[in-house]
Amino acid sequence: MSSSFGINIKYSIFGQSHGNAIGVLIDKFPVGEQIDFEELNKFLSRRKPGQSDLTTKRNEADEPIFLSGLNEQNITCGAPLCAMIKNHDTRSQDYANIYDTPRPGHADYTAWLKYKGHADLRGGGHFSGRLTAPLCIAGGIALQILKRREIFISAKLIEAGGAKDALMFQTIRDAAAKGDSVGGVVECVIDYPEKFAGLGEPMFDNLESQLAKVLFGVPAVKGVEFGAGFGAAKLRGSQNNDEFRIDDNGKIHTLTNNSGGILGGITNGMPIIFRTAFKPTPSISIPQKTVSLSEKKDAEILIHGRHDPCVALRAIPVIEAVAACVMLDLISIS
Amino acid sequence: MSSSFGINIKYSIFGQSHGNAIGVLIDKFPVGEQIDFEELNKFLSRRKPGQSDLTTKRNEADEPIFLSGLNEQNITCGAPLCAMIKNHDTRSQDYANIYDTPRPGHADYTAWLKYKGHADLRGGGHFSGRLTAPLCIAGGIALQILKRREIFISAKLIEAGGAKDALMFQTIRDAAAKGDSVGGVVECVIDYPEKFAGLGEPMFDNLESQLAKVLFGVPAVKGVEFGAGFGAAKLRGSQNNDEFRIDDNGKIHTLTNNSGGILGGITNGMPIIFRTAFKPTPSISIPQKTVSLSEKKDAEILIHGRHDPCVALRAIPVIEAVAACVMLDLISIS
Amino acid sequence: MSSSFGINIKYSIFGQSHGNAIGVLIDKFPVGEQIDFEELNKFLSRRKPGQSDLTTKRNEADEPIFLSGLNEQNITCGAPLCAMIKNHDTRSQDYANIYDTPRPGHADYTAWLKYKGHADLRGGGHFSGRLTAPLCIAGGIALQILKRREIFISAKLIEAGGAKDALMFQTIRDAAAKGDSVGGVVECVIDYPEKFAGLGEPMFDNLESQLAKVLFGVPAVKGVEFGAGFGAAKLRGSQNNDEFRIDDNGKIHTLTNNSGGILGGITNGMPIIFRTAFKPTPSISIPQKTVSLSEKKDAEILIHGRHDPCVALRAIPVIEAVAACVMLDLISIS
Amino acid sequence: MSSSFGINIKYSIFGQSHGNAIGVLIDKFPVGEQIDFEELNKFLSRRKPGQSDLTTKRNEADEPIFLSGLNEQNITCGAPLCAMIKNHDTRSQDYANIYDTPRPGHADYTAWLKYKGHADLRGGGHFSGRLTAPLCIAGGIALQILKRREIFISAKLIEAGGAKDALMFQTIRDAAAKGDSVGGVVECVIDYPEKFAGLGEPMFDNLESQLAKVLFGVPAVKGVEFGAGFGAAKLRGSQNNDEFRIDDNGKIHTLTNNSGGILGGITNGMPIIFRTAFKPTPSISIPQKTVSLSEKKDAEILIHGRHDPCVALRAIPVIEAVAACVMLDLISIS
Repeated sequence: MSSSFGINIKYSIFGQSHGNAIGVLIDKFPVGEQIDFEELNKFLSRRKPGQSDLTTKRNEADEPIFLSGLNEQNITCGAPLCAMIKNHDTRSQDYANIYDTPRPGHADYTAWLKYKGHADLRGGGHFSGRLTAPLCIAGGIALQILKRREIFISAKLIEAGGAKDALMFQTIRDAAAKGDSVGGVVECVIDYPEKFAGLGEPMFDNLESQLAKVLFGVPAVKGVEFGAGFGAAKLRGSQNNDEFRIDDNGKIHTLTNNSGGILGGITNGMPIIFRTAFKPTPSISIPQKTVSLSEKKDAEILIHGRHDPCVALRAIPVIEAVAACVMLDLISIS
Repeated sequence: MSSSFGINIKYSIFGQSHGNAIGVLIDKFPVGEQIDFEELNKFLSRRKPGQSDLTTKRNEADEPIFLSGLNEQNITCGAPLCAMIKNHDTRSQDYANIYDTPRPGHADYTAWLKYKGHADLRGGGHFSGRLTAPLCIAGGIALQILKRREIFISAKLIEAGGAKDALMFQTIRDAAAKGDSVGGVVECVIDYPEKFAGLGEPMFDNLESQLAKVLFGVPAVKGVEFGAGFGAAKLRGSQNNDEFRIDDNGKIHTLTNNSGGILGGITNGMPIIFRTAFKPTPSISIPQKTVSLSEKKDAEILIHGRHDPCVALRAIPVIEAVAACVMLDLISIS
Repeated sequence: MSSSFGINIKYSIFGQSHGNAIGVLIDKFPVGEQIDFEELNKFLSRRKPGQSDLTTKRNEADEPIFLSGLNEQNITCGAPLCAMIKNHDTRSQDYANIYDTPRPGHADYTAWLKYKGHADLRGGGHFSGRLTAPLCIAGGIALQILKRREIFISAKLIEAGGAKDALMFQTIRDAAAKGDSVGGVVECVIDYPEKFAGLGEPMFDNLESQLAKVLFGVPAVKGVEFGAGFGAAKLRGSQNNDEFRIDDNGKIHTLTNNSGGILGGITNGMPIIFRTAFKPTPSISIPQKTVSLSEKKDAEILIHGRHDPCVALRAIPVIEAVAACVMLDLISIS
Repeated sequence: MSSSFGINIKYSIFGQSHGNAIGVLIDKFPVGEQIDFEELNKFLSRRKPGQSDLTTKRNEADEPIFLSGLNEQNITCGAPLCAMIKNHDTRSQDYANIYDTPRPGHADYTAWLKYKGHADLRGGGHFSGRLTAPLCIAGGIALQILKRREIFISAKLIEAGGAKDALMFQTIRDAAAKGDSVGGVVECVIDYPEKFAGLGEPMFDNLESQLAKVLFGVPAVKGVEFGAGFGAAKLRGSQNNDEFRIDDNGKIHTLTNNSGGILGGITNGMPIIFRTAFKPTPSISIPQKTVSLSEKKDAEILIHGRHDPCVALRAIPVIEAVAACVMLDLISIS
């Protein structure tokens, strides 16, 4: 099931950027959980386009409609939960030319290789960043459920176009002004009560594997690291090992957290820390070299339409959503 | 199934470092494939301990015994293939103390959190790097099958302890001399014929997700990146986008390969490139701070026994094995 | 994933009888298949209530709305296909009492055991026979795709309330007149071209296992048998074995078909035959003994509302749908 | 994964009848469970051939060797459990002719259709009834674990060759005397404490679906029914519905048990009852018509070697094993 993830809970994403609707189906969600719609919409609005001068102008209401999974009191009832968002502001004609001249950095060419003429490439189709909206519906609800269990998740942009702190926003604006875009790195921290130390499974269902699998399913992600990550490769064991200590209350902790809270794929009680690298938004307003698939010759493309100067910026709540979905899944496994 | 991976083909790893045997069960492997045992053993010997002054002295014959899956001509017959390696050189007493004083950087503490007193921690148990041996059996066979389809996979160490090229081996020796260890980065390249362009699935079963999931299941891995990876986060779209061109034979290629051959999670015909960051071997011959779980107080541990100064070095064939298993799985999906 | 089935193609059913909508999500459906909506609606109408004096009066338009998975030409595009049916004719008040006094033969009591007060029991909730409507959307499309590959599926009622042929319809009417209901047996035959002989997997993914798993997911099913089925248990090997013969064209067939076209779980070229036993519709208009869950004492219930006198009758297209979904899945596995 | 089953726990069977070994790999088995080897061997001996005049003479020690999953105290440790049985008494030459002239009622022909010349057909290969031995290892351990939770499982032969009670054993002997075989029906009852009422999942992971899926993976099974089963199809709703009553202790029960303890796929507190129909052993000592695959013409076959006159008889512990594996899986799902 290519558009699904999760071990106990199954999250399945559907939709194409310019189809009738996008949505998510969640099977084996916890039962008896009230959904706070206001809080959910607030979370979704963080991902929404058109929120600031740093994001695309596409205007989508992005109001989730719940089709199933709730009882009359809007409490999860054990049946699979399905929620969708209707697509309104679709401009298919914007994408007419990409069927022949694939956009560099996009999935147009590989979708054509795989699905041939049948692919729905409008706005990236099923490969579009817009598909992160239903992921955020699932994640937004998961965040509410986790909060009730005192698990807190928070992500932030720590780098954009090579710059950090205040400078990185200037870097985004500079790129945008030139019709260009920049990449970025999002860091996420998960804090959890001591009772969730020991969470995760050995080997390929471990917490790092599960998070990485879903993160690389988010469009534009090209790297994932935990704790010291690639930096750990530069260290010695005596530097990188997190030594254990016990406090007066008998709580065990580590003096450093190079492991990012994960040893052998299982939580050790320290905060979980991971970073995700996003490539620059491939859609830019600068002419680019491509090929004509029909004429089998070199061509040029100028991408019209709306796009974000830094996809990493809008991806912050998406990363939180991924972390929430995976954490909720793991605590649901017996 | 926590110790399994694969979408169509299922690879399941079993065993504990100092149990009776370690092994692999492979379901839905391609039928009609002859296994070249000599070539397989040659591949396995690359991972074997005791091969040089840079690796641990533990001496394991590591001869795979095939229990099922082959017909009388040693050709895969459609039944699940099971192969095991018996554990001989086990020294359980070396690990007696780790049940109480968990080793920093190892899974001892988290295994104890999860499995309590029942965990088999000897030599890392099911979390041991030794479990990569059966992974290499699967991968070694997969490499043979892929080679027949002209898919070639090759990994190498590109960085150790922050050093590159010849210097990195000196860095490893320096650390070893001090009873310390270093981390490292392994780069892997997958080359494939044009007909396998378009390989992979959308979203969470995409090639990057599948590779990352398995790579993070390899002990000591803390980071994975594709193509320009974390470097892409520093670039502008106009720099990072790989522009398309077509050659005289009608073959489409990209002028750069920042995507690492993967767009939208699907192969675009260019070589697949990814890098894996390994933390330093956590076992070092230097006293470390830890805690006594029984006495609930601070303690110290000095790890005896055998260990590698740079686990990334021995992991090179493991990375090739992972890449081979995942590629064979993907080309087996209809 | 409890409400899903399929090995390569994943079919996931969602919705509750009296929720907002019911629907199906299909991942990895074949690409490039045109959907004939008229033919699909004709198929769906066979399952629809209110078609004759033998079925319930509930009136549902049951028009599927396609949310995703099709391109602008209504051809499957590779993205997951989602279709839903809105629930209109819901009368929640009809079901107010069943939360306290569970209906005999229904899942009210077991849903309450599992989900406690959070269950949505209205009309059976997620356990309702109404959930077979989205199953029929998936199956109706699968039937179209299979027909293009010359695989034909046909089911019929062969027994009701112990009676056969014309008499069985009279038996249904008799029961209905008394506010009672009857069980029934549906037989299904799958005919396929020679090239699909050899279809299926060994052991637990075999064709019988896959069909049985899905069939027992259809409400009211209590038995499944293939070929001679329970009758085979009464035979001798010399009677039950289907002997092989070869015709002038080199086509191999069996002289009898007690195996129902399946040997070792794999098709042998002969028609696939299976029978499904349905219990009588549990909703009857006769007072029944039950208990009050709140008062913890014996009680009585008289079920109002609409129901079918023989659920097996309306299940005929459902059985065809199940067979089609499973067959399409199996021919999609490499 | 065709030779696996289970939702939370994964049971994977491997081996061919006349290969090196047969075995089972179990992932996510409960942790901290002591294995009573004596009791396990006693259970396995019930399935073993050569136990009476009613079973085949093949003599296999069938001693399970545990490769992984246990700690030094033979307690399950959380790592995947692998156990194997070596094949000793193999007589490959007995099966030389079946590669060309497939045995009626066996999987020889369909295995050839699927795997062509690569199939290992000796003694049925991976399709052999011998593969139920590792299933019984898993089931035997599961039975021990379930017993500790007061879940008891018991199966018996209730019909053979159409006869019941004492007569059925005579029927088996009669058939055996003529070199023939008979089919049979095995009934299984699962008794469990009240706290496991409410066990199972909705739709396709329901208890009936899970049991049926695995049961149809057992060689020679052609029918499965729960409670009144096919008999329910002959009843009226007023007869078949199990009415509820409550006793003085507040325990709810049903007055009849036509549902076999399962409503909506979920346990209702009453004993679980199901019946499995086995076809007659296809191997008989009577000449049968078949075809020569190489010469493409009609042929005859006389099967030498060892076989059971009634496979249902030896399948009794296999049915208990299946029930135990599935029940343990279900109670392990959160």
